[in-house]
Amino acid sequence: MTALTSALPLAITMGDPAGIGPEIILKSFIQQPEWMKNCVVVGDIAVMRQHAQLLGLSLEFKSIESTAQAHTVQAAIPVLQTGPTAHIELGLVSAVAGRMAADAVIWAAQAALRGEVAGVVTAPLHKKALSLAGIPHPGHTELLQSLAAEHLGLSENELPVRMMLTSPGLSTVLVSIHVSLRQAIDAVTQAQVLQTLQITHRSWQQLHGHSPRMVVAGLNPHAGEDGLFGLEEINEIAPAIAQAQQMGMTVSGPYPPDTVFMDAHSASGQSTTDVVIAMYHDQGLIPVKYLGLEHGVNQTLGLPFVRTSPDHGTAFDIAGRGLANPSSLLAAIKVARGERLNQRLS
Amino acid sequence: MTALTSALPLAITMGDPAGIGPEIILKSFIQQPEWMKNCVVVGDIAVMRQHAQLLGLSLEFKSIESTAQAHTVQAAIPVLQTGPTAHIELGLVSAVAGRMAADAVIWAAQAALRGEVAGVVTAPLHKKALSLAGIPHPGHTELLQSLAAEHLGLSENELPVRMMLTSPGLSTVLVSIHVSLRQAIDAVTQAQVLQTLQITHRSWQQLHGHSPRMVVAGLNPHAGEDGLFGLEEINEIAPAIAQAQQMGMTVSGPYPPDTVFMDAHSASGQSTTDVVIAMYHDQGLIPVKYLGLEHGVNQTLGLPFVRTSPDHGTAFDIAGRGLANPSSLLAAIKVARGERLNQRLS
Repeated sequence: MTALTSALPLAITMGDPAGIGPEIILKSFIQQPEWMKNCVVVGDIAVMRQHAQLLGLSLEFKSIESTAQAHTVQAAIPVLQTGPTAHIELGLVSAVAGRMAADAVIWAAQAALRGEVAGVVTAPLHKKALSLAGIPHPGHTELLQSLAAEHLGLSENELPVRMMLTSPGLSTVLVSIHVSLRQAIDAVTQAQVLQTLQITHRSWQQLHGHSPRMVVAGLNPHAGEDGLFGLEEINEIAPAIAQAQQMGMTVSGPYPPDTVFMDAHSASGQSTTDVVIAMYHDQGLIPVKYLGLEHGVNQTLGLPFVRTSPDHGTAFDIAGRGLANPSSLLAAIKVARGERLNQRLS
Repeated sequence: MTALTSALPLAITMGDPAGIGPEIILKSFIQQPEWMKNCVVVGDIAVMRQHAQLLGLSLEFKSIESTAQAHTVQAAIPVLQTGPTAHIELGLVSAVAGRMAADAVIWAAQAALRGEVAGVVTAPLHKKALSLAGIPHPGHTELLQSLAAEHLGLSENELPVRMMLTSPGLSTVLVSIHVSLRQAIDAVTQAQVLQTLQITHRSWQQLHGHSPRMVVAGLNPHAGEDGLFGLEEINEIAPAIAQAQQMGMTVSGPYPPDTVFMDAHSASGQSTTDVVIAMYHDQGLIPVKYLGLEHGVNQTLGLPFVRTSPDHGTAFDIAGRGLANPSSLLAAIKVARGERLNQRLS
């Protein structure tokens, strides 16, 4: 794990070049130049120039060969070229765009695994383009998990990861993500809940330097009302919490799902909770998205490096039109630097 | 169905006399006298006086024999006495308090069924006290359903009801409520979803005079992603929506659960959605409660009269101490009058 207090740069992968990734990166450099110091764009310099021209932005770019050169770049955006360039038609799904997006992610992950960057912030890629490019992983998370496991000589099962979603005033980590609700219930086992707590505890400590204060949602209405509406709280969740407490973690629950997020949410940053552990995808994502997507950050926990991303897609329909909002990317950069999102960013 | 534009009074049941029900009713009369015009307290006049005295409020009460007398009461709170009075120890669960609370609810429901009141707003009762008083129903909803079915000569199955929760900017109706999440998934059938849409459509029309614009949440993450994460959207929910559309309802979906509430929520009242149909308890209650409980309103749809209640309990721990907040009761009174909660009440 690379300490984020280091002077190592942050790698920002450009995302699918036919989408809004390059645009939100450029806007971030313009809107928050202080935050973007020591950030390196990983991708294709011609694509970045194409987007700047379309948006009428006069920005300088500087091609670099390694991230170590980043701090030498003055008054220009450093771009690390990760593969051959190509002509890109904005707003279209293509294998070539998918390939360029994947090249950037693979390069950034390997740089992070070599300890050359402080973390990786990924602009959105398009899952179908990735597939057309021959990448066997459905998205960023699985691709990064695979690269990290390979680097560490582990199987993917030996490197479990979890998704953490953060919006101003609320962070939530999900026990499972892209499975049916029936399968998500089956995944609520003592082992999976404990593993989620362990991954969250370790990742939070590494990023923030202190242990997280965690609360755990139940699975059933009213957290099962003493077994009246389901037994998972008694048989699986409570024992996992007890184990985690014995291991020294600061955790309590299970609490009724319909009030635990309300209680943990804090617009002012005064909450006594850092993370709510959610039992399934929508339980955590409904509250974290409720007040709007523009400031949401997706973070992959369990990787041997810091990885965050904005919580939105490639938005091919508005690519190159100057309409994309960089707030979520800026929030992702803030979170990757170990800062909290206690209030909305402007 | 009684038109709410009528001059008929609204019945406010006092709730468990040992809890905060009487206090929030008194505070409502003080804080919003205009809204409370033509409201009748149904319960016990000695209990109301006891609470007023404890709170140091100098209020006049006037005992009435029938709701028709309500409009003749000047400069006093009209109270309809529904049974013998008794000494009540605040903050304690007791059969006598449960009996007094039940008497008020039964009287108000029967008055509503006779067409003598425009609607019933119920202050909170205590489920254990209700049970100690020998009432075989676990709460308000089931008791009211039973009384209404009996009045109409129907079985309870023939009078299905649904819970609607409203907070400023969001209303949601739940397909099922107090069952385990596994059982809730089993309840997501074409028939149950269609019945929920029909009850919502009819109740909204009766209360607001126009058809609701409804959207339906999926059950699974991403609303199943074309069957990849579950088939309920394809096999059950979409066919129910198609049937409802053929019947002339304004409804669409199923939409991804993690964004449908965000999209429907409107702090400004500018949303194009009136109601989100939620597939299970926490899917709907997490977002509706997320911004705080103080303005939430619970409404029972499917009864032959309007019934709303505040979305909190008896709070025995603070009974008689002057700490209870009447906002949720005031919101319930507003909703019972067919008004919308587009912004927070102060």
